[in-house]
Amino acid sequence: MDKKLEELKSKLADLSDLGQAAAVLGWDQQTCMPVGGAEARGNQQALLGRLGQEWATSPELGKLIDELMPYAESLDPDSDDARLIKVSARDFAKATRVPTDFVVEFTRVTTMANQGWVEARQKSDFSIFQPHLEKIVELRRKYATFFPEAKHPYDALLDDFEPGMKTEDVKAIFTALRPQQVELIKAIAAKPQVDDSFLHQTFDEKKQWDFGVEVITKFGYDWNHGRQDKAPHPFTTGFGYSDVRITTRVDPNFLNPMLFGTMHECGHALHGMGFAPELDRTGLDGSASLAIGESQSRLWENLVGRSLPFWQHFYPRLQEVFPSQFGNVPLESFYKGINKVHPSLIRVEADEATYNLHIMLRLEVEIAVIEGKLAVKDLPEYWNTKMREYLGVTPPNDAQGVLQDIHWSFGAFGYFSTYALGNLVSAQLWEKINQDIPNLADQVRAGKFDELLAWLRKHIHRYGRKFQPQELVQKVTGSKIDPAAYMRYLRSKFSEIYGM
Amino acid sequence: MDKKLEELKSKLADLSDLGQAAAVLGWDQQTCMPVGGAEARGNQQALLGRLGQEWATSPELGKLIDELMPYAESLDPDSDDARLIKVSARDFAKATRVPTDFVVEFTRVTTMANQGWVEARQKSDFSIFQPHLEKIVELRRKYATFFPEAKHPYDALLDDFEPGMKTEDVKAIFTALRPQQVELIKAIAAKPQVDDSFLHQTFDEKKQWDFGVEVITKFGYDWNHGRQDKAPHPFTTGFGYSDVRITTRVDPNFLNPMLFGTMHECGHALHGMGFAPELDRTGLDGSASLAIGESQSRLWENLVGRSLPFWQHFYPRLQEVFPSQFGNVPLESFYKGINKVHPSLIRVEADEATYNLHIMLRLEVEIAVIEGKLAVKDLPEYWNTKMREYLGVTPPNDAQGVLQDIHWSFGAFGYFSTYALGNLVSAQLWEKINQDIPNLADQVRAGKFDELLAWLRKHIHRYGRKFQPQELVQKVTGSKIDPAAYMRYLRSKFSEIYGM
Repeated sequence: MDKKLEELKSKLADLSDLGQAAAVLGWDQQTCMPVGGAEARGNQQALLGRLGQEWATSPELGKLIDELMPYAESLDPDSDDARLIKVSARDFAKATRVPTDFVVEFTRVTTMANQGWVEARQKSDFSIFQPHLEKIVELRRKYATFFPEAKHPYDALLDDFEPGMKTEDVKAIFTALRPQQVELIKAIAAKPQVDDSFLHQTFDEKKQWDFGVEVITKFGYDWNHGRQDKAPHPFTTGFGYSDVRITTRVDPNFLNPMLFGTMHECGHALHGMGFAPELDRTGLDGSASLAIGESQSRLWENLVGRSLPFWQHFYPRLQEVFPSQFGNVPLESFYKGINKVHPSLIRVEADEATYNLHIMLRLEVEIAVIEGKLAVKDLPEYWNTKMREYLGVTPPNDAQGVLQDIHWSFGAFGYFSTYALGNLVSAQLWEKINQDIPNLADQVRAGKFDELLAWLRKHIHRYGRKFQPQELVQKVTGSKIDPAAYMRYLRSKFSEIYGM
Repeated sequence: MDKKLEELKSKLADLSDLGQAAAVLGWDQQTCMPVGGAEARGNQQALLGRLGQEWATSPELGKLIDELMPYAESLDPDSDDARLIKVSARDFAKATRVPTDFVVEFTRVTTMANQGWVEARQKSDFSIFQPHLEKIVELRRKYATFFPEAKHPYDALLDDFEPGMKTEDVKAIFTALRPQQVELIKAIAAKPQVDDSFLHQTFDEKKQWDFGVEVITKFGYDWNHGRQDKAPHPFTTGFGYSDVRITTRVDPNFLNPMLFGTMHECGHALHGMGFAPELDRTGLDGSASLAIGESQSRLWENLVGRSLPFWQHFYPRLQEVFPSQFGNVPLESFYKGINKVHPSLIRVEADEATYNLHIMLRLEVEIAVIEGKLAVKDLPEYWNTKMREYLGVTPPNDAQGVLQDIHWSFGAFGYFSTYALGNLVSAQLWEKINQDIPNLADQVRAGKFDELLAWLRKHIHRYGRKFQPQELVQKVTGSKIDPAAYMRYLRSKFSEIYGM
């Protein structure tokens, strides 16, 4: 079996190296590539994508995995090798279920749909995107039929982003969460609003950049294994755990995008830098799921970066960097300002208390559309109604409503809920971490993050994709993904801020 | 045949896309990659390299080419398709002659040799590099045996960089050139030296960069299809003709590296941006040879960039940018300064009049070593003797002598002569261009380069690898590579500068 296992690992290493090469090309495309290079880049990526698809579905790989399954069963089920074989078997089974014709057609349709979405959003006209989205929905429903054993067709879509997670689980989580969040927002709305006007001033771009760098360097971002660049839509990408790069956006008239964006991406990067070296080039060196990934970015951005102890340490420094902007703003006001709750139209600009409601709306749309209970043409009206119901705001147009996100144009159904699940997990982890490190707040107040990072490395990062998300959360916190911790966090934080 | 030809083109497109992807990884490695990413990058590149080698030598490709050869013979021999098939046949034949074992061994030996060279140069101790170089020479001689039909074993090495060029041709060119260059240098040395101290002052790095950008933008460098970054060893790389990137080096205390380096790399890039779109992704979209490539970089760097008309246009602007450095330096003095002839130890710092002598020395070493007439251990002494003979200078140590260049540590024998051949070709082209564009000097004096660039596009760039270097030079200038034009250029230029 040793030889077979080596053979499997060698094939997985090739697949991994190929994926890393494609990721380098993708990073370059979004940060460096001159506009005129796009067509050539498309050809290069198409080739690497084609090879990856061929290798991931090759009969030789399937045979090898089949031969190794009995061996995997004979091992400690939590050993790296047992998990490696089983995760590979799962990946292979999923990849081979989907016919190549379908993949080609899906790529064709989504490429055009993305162009349609760009135009539709520019003109704020959903009808331009509608026929594209109808095709995508048709293909997503078709995709679900390749997994007939699923209890719900949406399960197949969700599973691509949250392995093992079921539609009924997600529904149950959000059904429990929604009334509590709506109630909290109403309670906050009844209180006097906090001021955040000082965040909307002119901030020198280089000084902003340098401050962000200072913060994430203290977090533990390793510049020998990463770099930061500018990107209009910030992202993190890694080529193995030894080269994990982040991007950020700097708005000269608003501090938040750089500040919280940089911490958010750093959270992703610390995760990517923390996969166990033993998992390198095995395909297990990735996030267990998007929600687990998001729990890491959100933890550093919000649980750490929007906390009072954090600013007790960093605010004097920020005042030093921007004396005219913050010299007369007391810490307490600043802290309240960065945590202002304000129901708004745009998901990516939403605060901690309202964010999940944006997600629930999208989840409900997706499930209803996949179930055939909601027609694509009725989406804008449905959207606007729900926005009123959950957040009390009405989009003045499609661009600020149903057309605001790019995800559906890429055919990504099942993606959105992972953002909210990530929030929930971040709070579950935070409670556990504070039990394990009782003086964590003091450490943060002293600008020390090494014990926190070590905890995350040990309990989350190093495992990569070894465990499924629910399994990992259960293992670490003692329960599956659950909204209680997040609600406790929100209530405690905002009661204090809004004096409730 | 149409179907077979399409099949060939499809395979060549894959090979080309793969090569481009590897080139993107290479560019990133030299400009962006954090140090800690090196090992992962090595794995990614090894995979792409392995695939490229497999595809370039695959029996299916060979069979296809064989089947297409009669068709190629039936076409106009200068048609794109005929050339495509024949060049592919030549590439395939060369690639399959070399056993995979040898390629693996060569990679292993040169990887270690490169490390050995780095250490040897740091310690200025040739004995550290000697055993590595002995192995490399052994492998280079072995390589030559894979091409037993060659008249001279060095032919096989030369052919990798200058397709079709023979050792006896290169020897003949240099035998004619050497006494003339040595005589010229002696004549110059008898005259009073010109002053270039004003080039060694402090120059703001950003202002240097911007001036370089201004110059090459006027040359016609297309920023929609390229970008410039910093690199310690400047280079140009292209991913197809639509994305061709340059790098430069900025020395805060010496203007020349940025100034002439930027123009040099821009010359390469204009070449790379000019391959005919019909050749895109065929494998013909490359330089006919290194000498042809170098003729383009040298033409813009020297024939244009070190000429009086060029500075009649740009010097007032340079004075504006650096008023304290050049305000009191007249144009004539500046022009003489940038053309100062000064026999020196280091090839890459050599001026136009002495440069080729550095190359001849290396060529003689390489041929003698491959012929077995010179032992590797005797190299330092041989080197120093020749330096005295040709240039009248003696290296004080190995680092400034035989160890100065990286090329041999990579196993690149046959490479150096292409630098000098490029100089010769640039002068041949320049004479022809001036016949075809009689008022070229006036155009340059007016900062206009579009007609020059159009000429190069039409006569050189668009052909890519369709023609072999000697064939191309013959086609364009009416004679093969010949030192006469270069000697006319040097004599005329330096007689004036040094008042001979």
